[in-house]
Amino acid sequence: MEKIALSRFYKLKGPYTLVIRRETVPIQHSRPTMVVKVYGSAFASPKRVLACLIEKEIEFETVPVDLLKGEHKAPEFLKLQPFGTVPVTQDGDYVLYESRAIMRYYSEKYKSQGTDLLGKTIEERGQVENWLEVEAHNFNPPVYNLTVQVLFSSKLGFPRDEKLIKESEEKLGRVLDIYEERLSKSKYLAGDFFSLADLSHLPFTQYLVGQIGKEYMISSRKHVNAWWNDISSRASWQKVLQLYPAPV
Amino acid sequence: MEKIALSRFYKLKGPYTLVIRRETVPIQHSRPTMVVKVYGSAFASPKRVLACLIEKEIEFETVPVDLLKGEHKAPEFLKLQPFGTVPVTQDGDYVLYESRAIMRYYSEKYKSQGTDLLGKTIEERGQVENWLEVEAHNFNPPVYNLTVQVLFSSKLGFPRDEKLIKESEEKLGRVLDIYEERLSKSKYLAGDFFSLADLSHLPFTQYLVGQIGKEYMISSRKHVNAWWNDISSRASWQKVLQLYPAPV
Repeated sequence: MEKIALSRFYKLKGPYTLVIRRETVPIQHSRPTMVVKVYGSAFASPKRVLACLIEKEIEFETVPVDLLKGEHKAPEFLKLQPFGTVPVTQDGDYVLYESRAIMRYYSEKYKSQGTDLLGKTIEERGQVENWLEVEAHNFNPPVYNLTVQVLFSSKLGFPRDEKLIKESEEKLGRVLDIYEERLSKSKYLAGDFFSLADLSHLPFTQYLVGQIGKEYMISSRKHVNAWWNDISSRASWQKVLQLYPAPV
Repeated sequence: MEKIALSRFYKLKGPYTLVIRRETVPIQHSRPTMVVKVYGSAFASPKRVLACLIEKEIEFETVPVDLLKGEHKAPEFLKLQPFGTVPVTQDGDYVLYESRAIMRYYSEKYKSQGTDLLGKTIEERGQVENWLEVEAHNFNPPVYNLTVQVLFSSKLGFPRDEKLIKESEEKLGRVLDIYEERLSKSKYLAGDFFSLADLSHLPFTQYLVGQIGKEYMISSRKHVNAWWNDISSRASWQKVLQLYPAPV
């Protein structure tokens, strides 16, 4: 594939010097560059994708989509993503949306490049899938509710739902109790290897310990805390935080 | 692997004669059979897994878990699935939960056996992942709410939330409008091949057109209707309906 060849040819050294915006690519290509376009980089779900692409040493550029201005519901954007959510990736003609689908695709397509995020065997990948689904269906709903209610409600013009905040915090606490047990037995969620299952927690947990002001939910749980310190200090995530400030 | 060898050795002819309960396996094995145990077969999410295993010609047995009696919250069950949901699969010592993770694992492990449910290329698999995530995050929440509110609320002892029913129906309608557009361009959701992305819709859409009484939502959309008639008439799904009656 053209874009793989180009990516390998121009690949720069180390994640810190990785060129991640088209305008900074130092060489004028005589062929189209075909870097991956990522829409909506300021927001939490797209940051899963950004961290994943940096781990995989894949060149990308970002396209801002301001959810607070409703740009995700603009007709032009809906042609690309009919459900009107971010992220979207565009890779030549190949379009994907849904952050976890995008991460799976690039992790598989560039399996041997950068960090292996899917496990080494089919059984390990099964555990990655298991805990990626746990993140999506158990962890994410309450932490997403907390994020929207605590950080975005006033900006979006609706009142905070204190009952929902309380329920979400309690529900998230129960999920983290199960994580504590799990992480007392393995270093990472899917086993003793870092994977998409861990990475997928980064953006919303960052809100939780930061702007939401509920760091105690992580720090009060020994193994969850060690896991969080480990995964959030990865170069990929630090790079995302540095380059793409949160909108709130 | 032992269980693959056994599965191939004892595999019966055609999906209709597939042996899917341990007690009907006709041969006394001198080695343990290691068929896949599936917990919670009467309910919707486990039925995704059952249809998938039948498509993949994988032997399994079912273990009833009655959610209406709260058996999923029993200490013994929580040892297996700490979040207290179904399905769970147990395959020797290898345990998975979350229906879509289980489907991915078995579809990959037995890629060349039975129906290929993941697409032929990495790009096709990317589209399968995309639409499997759409099912999980766009389609499933409103149809799940309709199912719980319309079919299970009285059994679970809480009043129907008519506002939530109305909102869920409207939201599901908007999702199905996007499906209609998509399915006017390809025969199935991920492309012109049947995949997990389609299969994953079977259990809750069956409730929608059946017990929930909102068949019009499917039949009023030409391409969605043709797609539903196609996927719901597959031998695998008919077998699931025949063998595992819904609890309501």
